Amino acid sequence: MADFATFVLKNVLVVSLAVNMCLIWKISFEDEQTLAFSWENIRQKLHFHGCCSNGEESNGIGKDAHVSTATQILATTSSGAAPFVTDGGEGVVINLDHGDPTMYEHFWKQKGQETTVVTSSWQHISYFSDIKNVCWFLEPGLMSAITRLHKVVGNAVTEGRHIVVGTGSSQLYQAALFALSPHNASRPMNVVSAAPFYSSYPLMTDYLRSGLHKWAGDANEFSKQEPYIELVTSPNNPDGFTRQNVVKGNKGILVHDLAYYWPQYTPILLPADYDIMLFTVSKSTGHAGTRIGIDSSKRKYLHLGFILKCHSWALVKDREIAKKMTTFIEINTIGVSKDSQIRAAKILQAISDSCDHANQKDAETFFDYSYKLMAQRWKEIREAVKKTKLFSLPNFPQETCTFSGRTFGQLPAFAWLRCEGEVDDCESFLRRNKILTRGGKHFGGSTKYVRISMLSRENEFKLLIQRLPAIIS
Amino acid sequence: MADFATFVLKNVLVVSLAVNMCLIWKISFEDEQTLAFSWENIRQKLHFHGCCSNGEESNGIGKDAHVSTATQILATTSSGAAPFVTDGGEGVVINLDHGDPTMYEHFWKQKGQETTVVTSSWQHISYFSDIKNVCWFLEPGLMSAITRLHKVVGNAVTEGRHIVVGTGSSQLYQAALFALSPHNASRPMNVVSAAPFYSSYPLMTDYLRSGLHKWAGDANEFSKQEPYIELVTSPNNPDGFTRQNVVKGNKGILVHDLAYYWPQYTPILLPADYDIMLFTVSKSTGHAGTRIGIDSSKRKYLHLGFILKCHSWALVKDREIAKKMTTFIEINTIGVSKDSQIRAAKILQAISDSCDHANQKDAETFFDYSYKLMAQRWKEIREAVKKTKLFSLPNFPQETCTFSGRTFGQLPAFAWLRCEGEVDDCESFLRRNKILTRGGKHFGGSTKYVRISMLSRENEFKLLIQRLPAIIS
Repeated sequence: MADFATFVLKNVLVVSLAVNMCLIWKISFEDEQTLAFSWENIRQKLHFHGCCSNGEESNGIGKDAHVSTATQILATTSSGAAPFVTDGGEGVVINLDHGDPTMYEHFWKQKGQETTVVTSSWQHISYFSDIKNVCWFLEPGLMSAITRLHKVVGNAVTEGRHIVVGTGSSQLYQAALFALSPHNASRPMNVVSAAPFYSSYPLMTDYLRSGLHKWAGDANEFSKQEPYIELVTSPNNPDGFTRQNVVKGNKGILVHDLAYYWPQYTPILLPADYDIMLFTVSKSTGHAGTRIGIDSSKRKYLHLGFILKCHSWALVKDREIAKKMTTFIEINTIGVSKDSQIRAAKILQAISDSCDHANQKDAETFFDYSYKLMAQRWKEIREAVKKTKLFSLPNFPQETCTFSGRTFGQLPAFAWLRCEGEVDDCESFLRRNKILTRGGKHFGGSTKYVRISMLSRENEFKLLIQRLPAIIS
Repeated sequence: MADFATFVLKNVLVVSLAVNMCLIWKISFEDEQTLAFSWENIRQKLHFHGCCSNGEESNGIGKDAHVSTATQILATTSSGAAPFVTDGGEGVVINLDHGDPTMYEHFWKQKGQETTVVTSSWQHISYFSDIKNVCWFLEPGLMSAITRLHKVVGNAVTEGRHIVVGTGSSQLYQAALFALSPHNASRPMNVVSAAPFYSSYPLMTDYLRSGLHKWAGDANEFSKQEPYIELVTSPNNPDGFTRQNVVKGNKGILVHDLAYYWPQYTPILLPADYDIMLFTVSKSTGHAGTRIGIDSSKRKYLHLGFILKCHSWALVKDREIAKKMTTFIEINTIGVSKDSQIRAAKILQAISDSCDHANQKDAETFFDYSYKLMAQRWKEIREAVKKTKLFSLPNFPQETCTFSGRTFGQLPAFAWLRCEGEVDDCESFLRRNKILTRGGKHFGGSTKYVRISMLSRENEFKLLIQRLPAIIS
């Protein structure tokens, strides 16, 4: 009897789970359509259509703005929920506009002990303060963790820099614009970046229709004799290339977004030494890879988003600019969550620890671990692309990394794939082949290109590798 | 010998501590002047002078903007560091523009166990998501904690409401303006509030010179035949009165800021039932009291700021508005830190638990505890003011609280003190008597009034009570 009861119970459970799945699917479908609609609105109102359509900070947003077809919803649901790809994947739409939350999870599980934080509600009432610090809400522990990591990796100069911590790199970006735009100017400051540029820049610049700054498009096209802020993303998102500023003007202020200047993505050649450098370690911890998908994945994106948030900081040479950035964050969100900073510090220290030679006997360094993952994936996608005449990938010069001593070409977090021949709309072409990517136009670039996430789930990445060579025009 | 060594050691320690204190004092002094300067700048550029000059979210900011005289620096240092008030306080300047981080600490220490959170770096990769939720980054645990607390206290209707969580009430305020302002209008939306109004509203509305909305001042003076957003803060900051909307227009949208609608500050008469209600529990947990001072206290302010941050939420009736608010927070800071939400949920649950009759045997409810503190302080300040003809305090009607069953008049977190007779500048008058307050003009009100924090440290509050009756005009 007991066995029978258990048997019945199991059946009921299976049925109920199936029902859940259908409901979730249905709901996410509706949810997306409405969200997509509201986003379409905002973007129209901003007279902007290229933004928010990438895998970064505003991935969730971008999705809302961009992904709204049933196919794509299905795709994302499928990628969000493993069961949909258990059929070998032939019929499955794969969404390669996102990464993989579990890609580095193995590494972090090993680090579980070191990076565990215990906090009580009555804690953090300490009166100690580092009042010499321009960014008064920056935790001293996080400051030293950031400084140490840059020293260990050798990717940025920290001496004589003020560290400003932000709730996400998007807030730091907005803080930099606030700090660098004159507050008494008759017209807003021009903000430019060379196409293809990170597709969230335009929305983050214009969503409040600020009188302080306005998006002025492709830096290559900018010829006004007006002050401007040029965003230099290096290595660049989406195409992975190392960059320098392009506007030949004397009225420009440069902001360097170095989110990908970490040794699993690019050879570290020397410590970056610019006036304003934006960093987020989310790209280096692999947590960026979790900011994926639409429905269930939105939550995944959030679930490590908090790490992303407290892992963003700016290295700023000028004290007044650092102060104004701090001011923006004060008005905007009253500083940055202290406990998030404490967790961030723990995680950054764990990364640095893993790089200490002393520890290397028993543990692989974090960057070795992630470099090998990236190198393997790039090897596989290049082999897949070689098998067909339809596509091409950028080639990067081999350089020697001062951190690892390895000589290699860039291993970007995104593949900037070009459709060769007569295919002009690469995004649509791939979608017809059930591969969802983000088209070049969203980055101010050509529709012959698409951006493909290299941080997707293993099963999705394998499907991509199988599918690309099989595509016929 | 050992004893002698210890003795010497102790002496050295004392000396070293004294030196530290002097250095901190010196540094904070310089730090403040520069900060104050940069703030003066921004405020001038914003053509605005009444903002950021209160004890709330932008206290740190307000201080920078507002407090820049040596006396005040000294004062804040003195209030920031206990040693300065051990002389009985006669000569000491007291800063009553801020609260007390330890005011409720005792309560939270009791709750230490319940509210302790343990998190590892590899956690929070859960795939579960509440995709039906408009605010996709809202933790289900926090949602239920918020709903439960409102039910327990009976201060707001949650049925048929969407909960949007924000990184601080200032972000939620900005999210509401973003959601309520038309994005295609030819001119920005008017934002008004009846004077005296919360002094951060103007800066938060105008700091980015947004084309979406602009501060339009005192709601009582607003007569344009244009759309407007009216902020109704009830109980009001600074004066503590219960409020209704005042603009008699049909083009208005109301936003209710109910940060102080908690039973230690005001009798709860019925569950608030408005379209858009902003809440922060920081005001009710007493953690608001920690956002104090300039130098070392800035850090205190931060140290519980994270609790404040994740303790702010909006109850929104309209789904589209809730979505747009969520959108703002997505672009602005990519959602809200998950671990902060988890801590917030714990703390809110602890407050609700303390209200359960089951628990009342062994523990005082949180609101009883805080009500008694507030009632005692109001009793003392009223007695002090009665002893002199120079000042008066507002009187509040006695009403019966549906939560506690007690009949009492409001016990605001701030005392709105009026200078009677010929004193026109009450802030300067009190400063001459070494009591630092925030003058009425910063709230769009009369200079005959000042706002005094009722959440200051016990020793400072005692000094105030001694000093007020002793003042002679």
